[in-house]
Amino acid sequence: MTSWESEGDRGSYHMSPDEFRRYGHDVVEWVANYMETVSERPVVSTVEPGSIRMKLPAAAPEHPESFEEILRDLDDIVMPGITHWQSPGWFGYFPANTSPPSILGELVSAGLGVQGMLWATSPAATEVEEVVADWLVELLGLPEGWKTTGPGGGVIQMSASDSTHTALVVARERAGVDIGRMVAYASEQAHSSIEKGARVAGFGHTRFVPVDEEFAMRPDALKAAIESDVADGLIPVVVVCAVGTTGTTAVDPVRAVGEIARLHGLWHHVDAAYAGTAMICPEFRHHQNGLDFVDSYTFNPHKWMFTNFDCSLFYVADRAPLLEALSILPPYLLNKATESGQVIDYRDWHVPLGRRFRALKLWFVLRSYGVAGLRHHVREHVALAAGLAEQIEQHPQLELVAPTPFGLVSFRHIDGDIATDALAMEINNSGWAYVTPSKLDGRSFIRVSIGQTNTTAEHVDRLWEMIEASS
Amino acid sequence: MTSWESEGDRGSYHMSPDEFRRYGHDVVEWVANYMETVSERPVVSTVEPGSIRMKLPAAAPEHPESFEEILRDLDDIVMPGITHWQSPGWFGYFPANTSPPSILGELVSAGLGVQGMLWATSPAATEVEEVVADWLVELLGLPEGWKTTGPGGGVIQMSASDSTHTALVVARERAGVDIGRMVAYASEQAHSSIEKGARVAGFGHTRFVPVDEEFAMRPDALKAAIESDVADGLIPVVVVCAVGTTGTTAVDPVRAVGEIARLHGLWHHVDAAYAGTAMICPEFRHHQNGLDFVDSYTFNPHKWMFTNFDCSLFYVADRAPLLEALSILPPYLLNKATESGQVIDYRDWHVPLGRRFRALKLWFVLRSYGVAGLRHHVREHVALAAGLAEQIEQHPQLELVAPTPFGLVSFRHIDGDIATDALAMEINNSGWAYVTPSKLDGRSFIRVSIGQTNTTAEHVDRLWEMIEASS
Repeated sequence: MTSWESEGDRGSYHMSPDEFRRYGHDVVEWVANYMETVSERPVVSTVEPGSIRMKLPAAAPEHPESFEEILRDLDDIVMPGITHWQSPGWFGYFPANTSPPSILGELVSAGLGVQGMLWATSPAATEVEEVVADWLVELLGLPEGWKTTGPGGGVIQMSASDSTHTALVVARERAGVDIGRMVAYASEQAHSSIEKGARVAGFGHTRFVPVDEEFAMRPDALKAAIESDVADGLIPVVVVCAVGTTGTTAVDPVRAVGEIARLHGLWHHVDAAYAGTAMICPEFRHHQNGLDFVDSYTFNPHKWMFTNFDCSLFYVADRAPLLEALSILPPYLLNKATESGQVIDYRDWHVPLGRRFRALKLWFVLRSYGVAGLRHHVREHVALAAGLAEQIEQHPQLELVAPTPFGLVSFRHIDGDIATDALAMEINNSGWAYVTPSKLDGRSFIRVSIGQTNTTAEHVDRLWEMIEASS
Repeated sequence: MTSWESEGDRGSYHMSPDEFRRYGHDVVEWVANYMETVSERPVVSTVEPGSIRMKLPAAAPEHPESFEEILRDLDDIVMPGITHWQSPGWFGYFPANTSPPSILGELVSAGLGVQGMLWATSPAATEVEEVVADWLVELLGLPEGWKTTGPGGGVIQMSASDSTHTALVVARERAGVDIGRMVAYASEQAHSSIEKGARVAGFGHTRFVPVDEEFAMRPDALKAAIESDVADGLIPVVVVCAVGTTGTTAVDPVRAVGEIARLHGLWHHVDAAYAGTAMICPEFRHHQNGLDFVDSYTFNPHKWMFTNFDCSLFYVADRAPLLEALSILPPYLLNKATESGQVIDYRDWHVPLGRRFRALKLWFVLRSYGVAGLRHHVREHVALAAGLAEQIEQHPQLELVAPTPFGLVSFRHIDGDIATDALAMEINNSGWAYVTPSKLDGRSFIRVSIGQTNTTAEHVDRLWEMIEASS
């Protein structure tokens, strides 16, 4: 008999603080146990489509169910359908890391349940966000003017897709009204979010600029594309530079692209969604040389900075055009602090109005790891990737398909697509590791992304043994 | 000495599962204590701009800090800057409720750290979301075809602003390419997210249609606006109907607007962000009569359904135009499940690519409360609002400015703006309650939103005593 059933026609169906205590402690144990056992679980769920759904009732329960029942179904029904992004054998896509301090930050944020849409609706939510955004300007070696105390500033958005879409909209608004003639530029290797963002923002045209042999945008090709479009009566509006493409972590030449952008009056947005985290180590910052010619920049602590999704930082060099594009103030949001002009109202920095206190988990992570801790783990991941790349390079049957500037190793079997696909499938069917099979210029290759919170040399060694044994 | 300092040149800076246990239990106690004391805290933070920021260091710490230090700063620095949306004295804006089962769902989701962008990247994340979206179709009395098993379907987005923006983009894409000539329609009382969404989506024109004496859109005025725009060579594309406006919870005539939308080929989107939750009670569903002439619909469990932000449901009657507008599939996201066409890939249902497992907290809430529990609390809030409205109506110095169909009471002092503003300020300065001072047709009024998770008759009585004493 549950606590609900025992009370008959109750006046409240809320779980009491004491029940929350009890189940909260249970869930903390559940999560800790998950952390301790995740490395033993098959990384990828092998359920069939519809099999989770089939086990769940077709309608919501009429009467309350006990939390014990809910946790039981979590174990029995949900968990078989979970693919374990937090496994140390996770080499797929890019990491989407969580970590203990981040989880605890999310817990506090959910408990407080504040809305940070305006400074006035919970001042600490805005000010802690300003502070961590400014800390990261220092940490990543971004221009000083990008701090909220300067003309620019940073804000937490949900994803790099949202950040990039925002940049495209601001660029579009700055350029005028003839959207159908506007052109957005990115490299052939740019993330799908650029194409999607440009389509969502209504751009008439998107150009995918050819890349060099290392899959980086060719400035001469960008220049030629812009000039050709201008000759055709179109309006070049924005160029997106990738620092670390999703395909192979290629690095577009930020400075050269920035010079062209400035010459032709384009907004210059940098997508460092994954690789931005590496910039906390000074030795990687040469990859983003030229930020003084950049208008906006995004990177995701929810990838490689041990902060769970969602947490994407979006910076602008000048916040005026951003606010001009996105500010609308209805009467029910009027307040003295906003009118004073002394505060930031983050609702004007993105599409959504509501916002939860996401800065808290990032603040917890930055303090709990310290800069030294973050650098240590990023350097470890990059060193492991470099080591694996070297082993692959020296193997007679394998070849790298792209450089390894950060934590991603891209390689294939020299016998071609069938051998490459078979190798990827063998790794993924092993159950303890997952890599992403992908395509480059129509040919198969394997992406090994080393950066999961819990991945160490032991796991990369084991992966290499399996690659070697199967090649 | 912290655990970090004691280990010197450590190999890992991660908090161990055992440390997570220890601090996790501390944070559960912290949140439970917060629940028990929130009613005693001054609802609105009175800190000065910059005062939180001033107490935080200008740079991230070089070395790890202990979790004890972090929690101490949470108490000492952050909490004074928190405005308590979870206080039972919260009558401001609309509620942004959290609840114990929701918090626990968020905790599990943060611990699992899965990415649900594709079905294949964690099947349970997608299938639980399908199930709860379908449950809510039943619960809210929405058309059967809006289930994911039909031609339509529901998806969790971050906010109603995002849902509405998505609807506007889909409508725009369906209409063609000449964005500058496109027109979006909503009432003069529509939420700012409509105007913002239309601007972000690039619409050349937004029309604010006049309302009747109850602040609901006038269908004859909509029809006239459309015909006038067509005569001027513009392209009417989309109309947004509010079921429960933010200003006064006015209800636009969904059926009449739908008939006009159908006649002129407009996309018809319904914004029930706040009031959608009331539809779990059949007696309120007459407010949304005519859903068979609706193309998309949004409501936010993160307002009144005890599920913490972010959790906005977005439904479409037909998912084909949505997917056509938003699907882009790069090679690194190819997979067999997607190719089979047997699964939903929710990334194609909104702008962002990444997505956390938000369905879990909603599933926890629906099961923990049961339908009976949700109905009980919604009915209680609406009854409290009706009671307060009656008291105001009978008071010689006060007058209602709008009907009270749900949980919002809108009223003013008959002596005018100065008396009304003074009354709002007196309530808000009391420290234990918060109402939103707003404007309607240029005149001040007070919004009392009754719907916070913990608000009961006791709190509304106390508010009324204060209103009466000051009027």
